[in-house]
Amino acid sequence: MDFTPSEKGQDYLNRVKAFIRDEIQPIEADYHAEMARLDNRWVELPVIAELKAKAREQGLWNLFFPDEEHGCGLLNSDYALIAEETGKSFIAPEIFNCNAPDTGNMEVLIHYGSEEQKAQWLPRLLSGEIRSAFCMTEPAVASSDATNMSATAVVEGDEVVLNGRKWWSTGIGHPKCEMIIFMGLSDPEAPKHRQHSMVLVPKNTPGVKVERMLPVFGSYDEPYGHGEVSFDNVRLPKSAIIAGPGRGFEIAQGRLGPGRVHHCMRAIGAAERTLELLIKRAMSREAFGKPLARLGGNPDIIANARMSIEQARLLTLKCAWLLDTKGIMGALSEVAMIKAVIPQMLQTIVDNAIQIHGGAGVSDDDFPLTQLFAYARVLRLADGPDEVHRGTVAKLELKKYA
Amino acid sequence: MDFTPSEKGQDYLNRVKAFIRDEIQPIEADYHAEMARLDNRWVELPVIAELKAKAREQGLWNLFFPDEEHGCGLLNSDYALIAEETGKSFIAPEIFNCNAPDTGNMEVLIHYGSEEQKAQWLPRLLSGEIRSAFCMTEPAVASSDATNMSATAVVEGDEVVLNGRKWWSTGIGHPKCEMIIFMGLSDPEAPKHRQHSMVLVPKNTPGVKVERMLPVFGSYDEPYGHGEVSFDNVRLPKSAIIAGPGRGFEIAQGRLGPGRVHHCMRAIGAAERTLELLIKRAMSREAFGKPLARLGGNPDIIANARMSIEQARLLTLKCAWLLDTKGIMGALSEVAMIKAVIPQMLQTIVDNAIQIHGGAGVSDDDFPLTQLFAYARVLRLADGPDEVHRGTVAKLELKKYA
Amino acid sequence: MDFTPSEKGQDYLNRVKAFIRDEIQPIEADYHAEMARLDNRWVELPVIAELKAKAREQGLWNLFFPDEEHGCGLLNSDYALIAEETGKSFIAPEIFNCNAPDTGNMEVLIHYGSEEQKAQWLPRLLSGEIRSAFCMTEPAVASSDATNMSATAVVEGDEVVLNGRKWWSTGIGHPKCEMIIFMGLSDPEAPKHRQHSMVLVPKNTPGVKVERMLPVFGSYDEPYGHGEVSFDNVRLPKSAIIAGPGRGFEIAQGRLGPGRVHHCMRAIGAAERTLELLIKRAMSREAFGKPLARLGGNPDIIANARMSIEQARLLTLKCAWLLDTKGIMGALSEVAMIKAVIPQMLQTIVDNAIQIHGGAGVSDDDFPLTQLFAYARVLRLADGPDEVHRGTVAKLELKKYA
Amino acid sequence: MDFTPSEKGQDYLNRVKAFIRDEIQPIEADYHAEMARLDNRWVELPVIAELKAKAREQGLWNLFFPDEEHGCGLLNSDYALIAEETGKSFIAPEIFNCNAPDTGNMEVLIHYGSEEQKAQWLPRLLSGEIRSAFCMTEPAVASSDATNMSATAVVEGDEVVLNGRKWWSTGIGHPKCEMIIFMGLSDPEAPKHRQHSMVLVPKNTPGVKVERMLPVFGSYDEPYGHGEVSFDNVRLPKSAIIAGPGRGFEIAQGRLGPGRVHHCMRAIGAAERTLELLIKRAMSREAFGKPLARLGGNPDIIANARMSIEQARLLTLKCAWLLDTKGIMGALSEVAMIKAVIPQMLQTIVDNAIQIHGGAGVSDDDFPLTQLFAYARVLRLADGPDEVHRGTVAKLELKKYA
Repeated sequence: MDFTPSEKGQDYLNRVKAFIRDEIQPIEADYHAEMARLDNRWVELPVIAELKAKAREQGLWNLFFPDEEHGCGLLNSDYALIAEETGKSFIAPEIFNCNAPDTGNMEVLIHYGSEEQKAQWLPRLLSGEIRSAFCMTEPAVASSDATNMSATAVVEGDEVVLNGRKWWSTGIGHPKCEMIIFMGLSDPEAPKHRQHSMVLVPKNTPGVKVERMLPVFGSYDEPYGHGEVSFDNVRLPKSAIIAGPGRGFEIAQGRLGPGRVHHCMRAIGAAERTLELLIKRAMSREAFGKPLARLGGNPDIIANARMSIEQARLLTLKCAWLLDTKGIMGALSEVAMIKAVIPQMLQTIVDNAIQIHGGAGVSDDDFPLTQLFAYARVLRLADGPDEVHRGTVAKLELKKYA
Repeated sequence: MDFTPSEKGQDYLNRVKAFIRDEIQPIEADYHAEMARLDNRWVELPVIAELKAKAREQGLWNLFFPDEEHGCGLLNSDYALIAEETGKSFIAPEIFNCNAPDTGNMEVLIHYGSEEQKAQWLPRLLSGEIRSAFCMTEPAVASSDATNMSATAVVEGDEVVLNGRKWWSTGIGHPKCEMIIFMGLSDPEAPKHRQHSMVLVPKNTPGVKVERMLPVFGSYDEPYGHGEVSFDNVRLPKSAIIAGPGRGFEIAQGRLGPGRVHHCMRAIGAAERTLELLIKRAMSREAFGKPLARLGGNPDIIANARMSIEQARLLTLKCAWLLDTKGIMGALSEVAMIKAVIPQMLQTIVDNAIQIHGGAGVSDDDFPLTQLFAYARVLRLADGPDEVHRGTVAKLELKKYA
Repeated sequence: MDFTPSEKGQDYLNRVKAFIRDEIQPIEADYHAEMARLDNRWVELPVIAELKAKAREQGLWNLFFPDEEHGCGLLNSDYALIAEETGKSFIAPEIFNCNAPDTGNMEVLIHYGSEEQKAQWLPRLLSGEIRSAFCMTEPAVASSDATNMSATAVVEGDEVVLNGRKWWSTGIGHPKCEMIIFMGLSDPEAPKHRQHSMVLVPKNTPGVKVERMLPVFGSYDEPYGHGEVSFDNVRLPKSAIIAGPGRGFEIAQGRLGPGRVHHCMRAIGAAERTLELLIKRAMSREAFGKPLARLGGNPDIIANARMSIEQARLLTLKCAWLLDTKGIMGALSEVAMIKAVIPQMLQTIVDNAIQIHGGAGVSDDDFPLTQLFAYARVLRLADGPDEVHRGTVAKLELKKYA
Repeated sequence: MDFTPSEKGQDYLNRVKAFIRDEIQPIEADYHAEMARLDNRWVELPVIAELKAKAREQGLWNLFFPDEEHGCGLLNSDYALIAEETGKSFIAPEIFNCNAPDTGNMEVLIHYGSEEQKAQWLPRLLSGEIRSAFCMTEPAVASSDATNMSATAVVEGDEVVLNGRKWWSTGIGHPKCEMIIFMGLSDPEAPKHRQHSMVLVPKNTPGVKVERMLPVFGSYDEPYGHGEVSFDNVRLPKSAIIAGPGRGFEIAQGRLGPGRVHHCMRAIGAAERTLELLIKRAMSREAFGKPLARLGGNPDIIANARMSIEQARLLTLKCAWLLDTKGIMGALSEVAMIKAVIPQMLQTIVDNAIQIHGGAGVSDDDFPLTQLFAYARVLRLADGPDEVHRGTVAKLELKKYA
């Protein structure tokens, strides 16, 4: 048994930590302040491009790819610890070209894309030149049951025609977002998990319209944002379908495993950051003759936070290790478990941190806690609500006795 | 034993419900939409003034006062049920001139104000012509321990001089806010609960400056708002001190009882509104072949919400009844209990409602759930954090055995 | 609104409290010690009969009946507070002839029994001369779904023939238990809630056999006990069926309302007793320089206990008041709510009390906490598990929107 | 990163699993049935001795020792997985001579014992010929604060004299228990953690008296038991003090790390066993047209159990690995964390299993759930209550910022 990263992983981890400490943290407050001053925040500030260039130069780029062709050949379990570090900052993932949904979209292209599709999109995504979005969730149906998806991707001759309305398309507001992966119903007569297709859609295709950007607890999360997007008779060559019609769920499944590890490890990083804020505040304020950190049930809150973070991290690392050693089919339960456990864990810690900060905790301008709360809250819904993941865990558990 | 309001209370309750149904609900969506379109939202829209006039005409005005001189002579337990109704709307409390902190401020004036002080402020507050704020919480200290308060209200000859910084001064952003009740340290040598004074401060007094309005989960809660206010050598005649120096805590204590019942009953109204949203959504969406309302653990969520609301309401009504029959000294534990129980209860129900709404639940533009969440979250801190109230309950419990 | 008992109720409450304080408490420790010394504990100790006689003399007898013919004409809401007092003792309910399941069985006889049935059983039950049991739950099926019940009560000519196995027949071990109400399937073809019948069975009828008494957390709860009972071709005249074949569920329903109030109020009494033990221990022991009562999160535990007890009591009293004023059909949700809320509340408080007692808390010989725990734990299953009652609450909630 | 045991560890694990499956499980029900039939259960049934001999023959003996001299040279992280397996049975730990408190007592002897002390006790403990007890907790003080300990171990000339009363001395009821490690106050003037000593006491020394055995939720846990033991002027040669006077806490500290891993991994084994019972029951019973396993919130209960077990196991394995690689000083927080997390986790799962079993769940004779509950409940107090361990975690967390 060994709970340490590989030598290579540790080396990258050290370098990422140093980069964040030396390059990102010093500019982060200014970055957010500058963004706050802008009337139009749907822009990429120059500092981001500069840091991306610097990170790429140092080889801290596309770290999430497990292969050496596209990334650095890091194990999922090694990259997980890096993702945790980037999760402590709202901008770090982008700097290392490790931001969702681009990461998952690139993986889909590599694993399922045709040579033509790869040629069209991959180089610019790998270089961070453009960004992309993923359109799956729909406003009109309960998306917790993915088979409810009712937007259509119908093959007509040599074309595929897209119709319907999607939302929570993260990143679609980014000025560099040029590509969308759209998932829609192709054949309602096919078996349940063979009815849907994924289609590559240039964002500027006629009929694609971003109807609005969605405000979440008062923030549009610029310059990425979450969009509501209508597809009105969007016509593309049939070759835009990824891996052929009816394979949407198969691709979605494959996309999930590592992506959830990334999400969850970033959330663990956010939890560590939150706990640090909580403790520092609790040590700096006194009430009833004691620092808050030693008052009443507060030590329990701190201990519970530490205990839940440690457990959550180990579960996620084990999940990553299973993906490394047994693949997604060997990690189905763990992939569901982390998604059910970690966002809720983060939300609880943020809520406690808010409480210990008092009024300062609910003021957007004083601490990042409301923003962290929104992040946690959304994560409990994004990519499947907690309930669905617990359902998966239960189902796999029952299977052992079937 | 009788769990029904008095005849008079029932009559007023019916009339308030009818007014809300007929006058307020029909304009509410438009009101919020119009506010959202404004660049400057620190205004009172004409519709508010119109509705206030109409409510006043119908005698639905200052309902919170238990006496007939200033209000309608309703019992706290009768008014509580009215407060619940107004809590289902973000604008209703104002319409009936029953909004905090004006309600508490008026009560302070009536019970502790000099004739001169009453003459100066009371008529215009009673008529709803002006609004007021309450400045107690401070950014620099843990306000959960009120004795930490370090802003000063020092008597110098015939004057009282105010210095310091306050925040979370609710309502101070309102265009009609003209008066502030300020609480500050007068005599650090006096016994612990005789050191502070309350002072009546015209908002336009030189030295009073609203430094900023505080954003809470993305909202400034216009046109009321929560302000950070500096007091820089603010000089007022000594007669501006309420009830004389050193009586701040005594007044604060008296101000609390009914105020907490109002807060908590409005929160219960908000919880009812939230549960209604939750259920309607849960019945209108299907996943895995069932309406969400019947799926998995969702019925438990609905039952738990109902059970916690019912219990919370009864506790608050009992508290109100104790205030009616035994006064604040007979309701000390209950007044603390409701404040510890109800905001957390509301937060839990809103959180569950968000989860059941899926993505729509976290979008500010689609449902009022993020706003209700912010309301609940703030209420767990405002007027003392949960922890302090639980501490009071525990202390009173131990006293029984001392 | 009025949260006080009626004058008559208050008078009875005072007298019951005095009786418990003066007559029961002084002998209670000795009673349990004497029981513990016996080899055969399936006996009624003489002191019980003496106290019963004394209570009856004083008119503190059959207090649960809302009518004056059989009881004292107390409202359910008045009796509820009396039940709370008796719940602080393991023997008090019996002393006042207010013990389950006799209470419910007597009510069934009064409301649904024929004159012959009443004549046969009622006088001796009303006088406390005999005791009775209720046989509904079955070992072979999930009894949470009562329609699973598979023991049979088949009419053959002039007879009804009982077959099957029941368990958790409380009180069947009592030496004075002479009568059983048996519920069984009469007609599997009838509509779902018209298939079962209730039958009055003399315990000594051939074919009735107590197969074993069930140990619960190490206790048989003597001299009452919970039995597993087989019915092997038990033949009775058809007139033993209560209210005729197929009316079992109808009777069961009517039996439930007040019975649940009694159960829950006794559990609230047990919770008060437990909280008193908890606080006394917490004030008498020191660790890390403080009495446990003031250490760490313990004040929160005390406050939470007080808050949950107060809320639970009010909910139960409101339920009783609804039964008084609107009958069972006006209290369906409340009757389910209290059963879902109170046993769990009691379990939590007992668990916390155990923790604060340390090792002493888990020793059966040192404190009654393990016994109180077992009582709470069983109550979460008896008369329907928590889940079923939450399900009822949810169903009724959804109905409002149907 | 690698979550698998070492090759050697895996080999032993396989052999232990096979032994349990082939030798222990087949006789376990009979063992408990035979014990239940005995009047005097303070005996070692012959089957235990037989199985111990067989296990020893196969080299499955003293597996907990990390060295090859006394054990098999297994890492803590390897042995942890073995402890989990033994925790699924109430008798397995003894069979492999891996039962507490003998394991800890042997470790104390090896690490701190004089040659004479070792010679006297070690061979017979290592061979499983005798058993031992550990006397630390006291009835008269809050033992959560170990410095409260007030029994005395005073050096008088060449002797050490023991006085005081201990309880929760586990294993003292075993017929083969011959030795006690006693901890007492030697020098109240010394620094706080240098005041106490540990003394080796032959159980038959004059003045040692087992006052009573403690019943826990109705069980004496024979043949081990938990005793209350008085020490009345017990005189021993000074050489009976382990490592010299004043070193009690130092030794206790060293004793804790691996011991807590053992306790917690056994509890995880118990949790797995409980979850298996829960699921099997939930799949075998139907209500409302569905197996309980798929009904309402039950799948969530199953998922939550799985998720909490996985996380708890990983935390414990990491703790064991830290002990292996960094020693106790590198695992202080983890050793506290597992003790705070795992017993509570087990209690929750057992409680849920009871609920799903319905009445069968609370019957001692039908399922081992009440026994598992008692085990979990006691474990939340034994070796320090949850609160103390959370306190340690919080303290270490705050230290990072000091």
